[in-house]
This record gives sequence, structure tokens and C-alpha cells, in this order.
Amino acid sequence: MKIFETIREMREFVEGAREKRLRIAFVPTMGYFHEGHLNLMREGKKYGDILVISIYVNPTQFSPSEDLSAYPRNLARDHELAAGVGVDVIFQPNDSQMYPEGSQTYVNVEKLTRNLCGVSRPHHFRGVTTVCAKLFNIVEPHTALFGKKDYQQLAAIKRMVADLGMNIEVIGMPTTREPGGLAMSSRNVYLSKEERQSALSLSHSLHLAQSAFKAGQCNAAEIIALVREHIGKHPYTDIDYVQICETMNFTDVETIEEGCLLALAVRVGKARLIDNHIFGEEINIPSTEV
Amino acid sequence: MKIFETIREMREFVEGAREKRLRIAFVPTMGYFHEGHLNLMREGKKYGDILVISIYVNPTQFSPSEDLSAYPRNLARDHELAAGVGVDVIFQPNDSQMYPEGSQTYVNVEKLTRNLCGVSRPHHFRGVTTVCAKLFNIVEPHTALFGKKDYQQLAAIKRMVADLGMNIEVIGMPTTREPGGLAMSSRNVYLSKEERQSALSLSHSLHLAQSAFKAGQCNAAEIIALVREHIGKHPYTDIDYVQICETMNFTDVETIEEGCLLALAVRVGKARLIDNHIFGEEINIPSTEV
Repeated sequence: MKIFETIREMREFVEGAREKRLRIAFVPTMGYFHEGHLNLMREGKKYGDILVISIYVNPTQFSPSEDLSAYPRNLARDHELAAGVGVDVIFQPNDSQMYPEGSQTYVNVEKLTRNLCGVSRPHHFRGVTTVCAKLFNIVEPHTALFGKKDYQQLAAIKRMVADLGMNIEVIGMPTTREPGGLAMSSRNVYLSKEERQSALSLSHSLHLAQSAFKAGQCNAAEIIALVREHIGKHPYTDIDYVQICETMNFTDVETIEEGCLLALAVRVGKARLIDNHIFGEEINIPSTEV
Repeated sequence: MKIFETIREMREFVEGAREKRLRIAFVPTMGYFHEGHLNLMREGKKYGDILVISIYVNPTQFSPSEDLSAYPRNLARDHELAAGVGVDVIFQPNDSQMYPEGSQTYVNVEKLTRNLCGVSRPHHFRGVTTVCAKLFNIVEPHTALFGKKDYQQLAAIKRMVADLGMNIEVIGMPTTREPGGLAMSSRNVYLSKEERQSALSLSHSLHLAQSAFKAGQCNAAEIIALVREHIGKHPYTDIDYVQICETMNFTDVETIEEGCLLALAVRVGKARLIDNHIFGEEINIPSTEV
């Protein structure tokens, strides 16, 4: 497994691989791996002759009040886990590689980043699409893989790739969950034992919503109320949003149809957690809280 | 000479060329060629095994009040002129190729596009950098050539390429001028015979400014006054701006040093014309008006 810290090294490797007509699969990450990351990497192995991952905690997707400095890091453990799933190359740049002096260019997907997480994190997606554009230009992957837990992020990346004519296939992978249903996230490390118990209310509320929809409830306001009530009765929870929207531009809907997205963001203690479900799709969450 | 109208055709050609390890030089244009365009193409021949040009009048760089619909077009003539200088491929997409349905992604170089033309054309450079990002992703050139007449545009493209880690060499070429000094522009076609005479005041004012600087005048306000006075005494002229700035972020300077930019935009009749000079560089403008 190779580890590159500079764009120059990464690019030389990519040029060599491209000349040999090898296909490159790419999983961009912020490190501190959990099974969700590792599943993306395992899947990535199927799409490329070479699997490149990046580890970079991108400052432009955090606001000044957010957890950039506290964001969990453990490079030694990440390297070991990556090697274990067969990663070929880790691209691990520093800030001056990614944001050279005088840097001032941003890639912005304008509409679909306004709602949901875009409301409380107005510059977040601009940071995400900008850093992904840079990483794509440096790694030149044929395929890039992202998790569906960050559903709006996945949609923004797909939109950027289509709009800017990038020659990259973007694959979204199902959310990996802990046995109780909690969506895996590096930020779960912030949770105390009691908070972790309360955090189960997120995934379980998705289950409740899907059951109500299956039973004939298609009024978005009713389902949102159900979800809010369920989460709200758990201690340490503070709901940022619960919304139901279409998946083109994430505009809120009044009447739910199959394919609509239920998305939620909830602060549990210090952690801001997100989760989501597409109505009509299978849901791999146990039906009762543990 | 091949002419491609779709991204798919263009991409297939590029993939073939890349597999043969041929170098691609690229000149993006809005068509209606003059000698300035043709000089870029002639120079492009030196940088690549294959010379690709694009002809696309990009709507997102025009404001609703500007001349998008009136912008001069003559594809048959452009094809003939391109063939004459040895262009290998013309990429000539339509709007639905370049801006697919739901398109909403923009690339923005934030600081250096605010001053100069950014003041009266606040969305112009966002359109330019966005369409160039798309074209670069489709054509995948090793080298791209732009004219220095659009100095701020050239700087924005260079900044974008550096900031987003694009693996492209951007070359700026000297402004091509008519014998009297007028910078070549597709918009010169808007000028009547009398207006064309007045338009010579732009390039001549650059000459005056350079002479004053050489004679020891380094006060920006004094030089700007000299330039404004010279242009102002010609009929049909309406100055948009005359500014002197550094070339990193185009911030105005009070004291001129070598390497500072004198940039101006002047409406002459219906045409909005721009021109510029870097203090200390050679100037290929006749010293007296014809």
C-alpha cells in the first residue's frame, strides 16, 4: 500500500496507471474509519484495478463554530484498516497542498444544497463539492464511491459531476448501521453510553415513518409530527430538522410518494447526527429498540 | 478537420488521442474569428500534437441586459478560417450539451473577479470559469491558450486551474491589434466608421500612460486622469472604468510599479471595449493616432 502526501506524487502514480489502462476506483474520506468506510472500500475493489482512497479533514466544509479541530483522527489505525481491505493507495495531503496560497476558487451546486443540511450549514456543501472537484482532478478516478447516509452530499456530487462534464461514475452505497440501527458515523465517538441509546431514536423513527407510509399515511406533515414526537421523547436529543422532500432539488413535499426522501438531523449531546430513508426502499433497521 | 457537436463524440476522440499519448492543445472561443483567435490557434499548433478549438457562445457569461442574442456569429466562415490554420477538431456544442436539464453548478473564483469588469459584470466571470471547467473536463487538454486582451479572464482561468488541481498548462498570448492599435475583438464589428476612429483612443491612452510612467510619473491617480482625459475628448466614448491595480487579486494601487496593470473598459457606441497594459512591458501600438 502506497501513501502519498503530495499532488505531484499522486499525479505521477495516476499517470502511470492510466498509461497501463488500469481503472481507478476512489473513496474520498475524512478518516477515522468505521465499517461504513470499509464497506465503501470493499465495494470500490470491484470497480477498479486500483483502489485509491483519500484521508483529508477538509476545513472549508466546517463553519467556524463546528468541530473541525475536535474531529476525530487516528491515522495509524486508518492505515492498518485500509491495508486490511486491500487499499492500494492512500492520498493524504495537507492543507497547503489542497488550498495553495491565494486559493479562492469554489465549486457550488446552487439549488439542491439550500434545503436540509444547507439551512443550518450554509457553506458546508460548497466546501464538499470544492474539495471533491480538487480530489477528482488529482486522482482522476473512473469511479468514485460515497455513502447514502450523507444523501444530500451524494446528490450534490452527482450533480456536480454531470454539470461540469466530469468523466466519472459516481456510486452511492447503502448506509452501514450498528446492530441496533444507528447509522455509522465518525461522530458517533462523541456519544456517551446514554446518548448512544437516545441516538437509536433516529433510525427507529425512520422505521416508524416507513411503517406509517406502508399503512397508507402519505401526509408529510403527519409523518414529520410522528418522527419528531418519537425522537423528542428521548433525552439528550435536539432536533435540527425533520423534512420530507423530492430528491431532484430537495424541495419539501406535502404528499409523500415512493422515492421521496425523509431526512433528519438531530443533535445528541455534542454530536450532530444525520440519517435518512427513501420511502418505498427496503430498510435494514431492527423494528424494536434494543 | 473534425467537427463534433456532442460531448460523447468529443470524449471518444479524446480517449483515442490520450491512448496514443498525443498531446492536446486547446483554444476555447465564442467564434466569429479575427486574427487574435487565429494567432492563438497558430501558437496552439506548437503546444500539441492535436489542436482542438471550441466554438460556443456561453449564455451564463452574459447578463440579461447584454448582447447574447446580438453576439456576432458566422460558423461557415469560422470553419474555413480554422481549417486554414490547421485546426484538427472543432467542438461546437449546443446549450443542452453544455447546460443539461437541472444544471446548477458554478465555479467561482471569488476575489480577483470582483474588481475591474467584475464591478459592472458581476456574474460574467462565474460564467467564464464555469464553462471553461466544463470544456476542460470534456476536452482534457494538456495546454489551453487565452489572449491577454481579456487579462482578468486569463488570471481567473489560471487561478481556477491552480486552485482546483487541474492538470493543464494555461498560456496567455499577447493582444493582437489592428494597424492603428485597436485591440482585435469580435465586438469591433458593432463599430461605425466614426466610432472605430474614436475607439483608437483606448490603445493610444495606454501608450500615453506608459510614456508618462517611463518619464517618472508613478502616481496612479495622475495617470488615470491622463487616460480619462484622452479618451473623454473623443466622441461616442463612455468610460466604464480606468483602473490601475496589482495582478494578484486586482486590488487598486496608489503608486505604480513595473508589473502593475492598467485596465480600461469603454463603451464606444453599442460596443463595450476593453484593453490593458502591464507597466514596463513592451507595447506594440503606434505612437500617433492614424
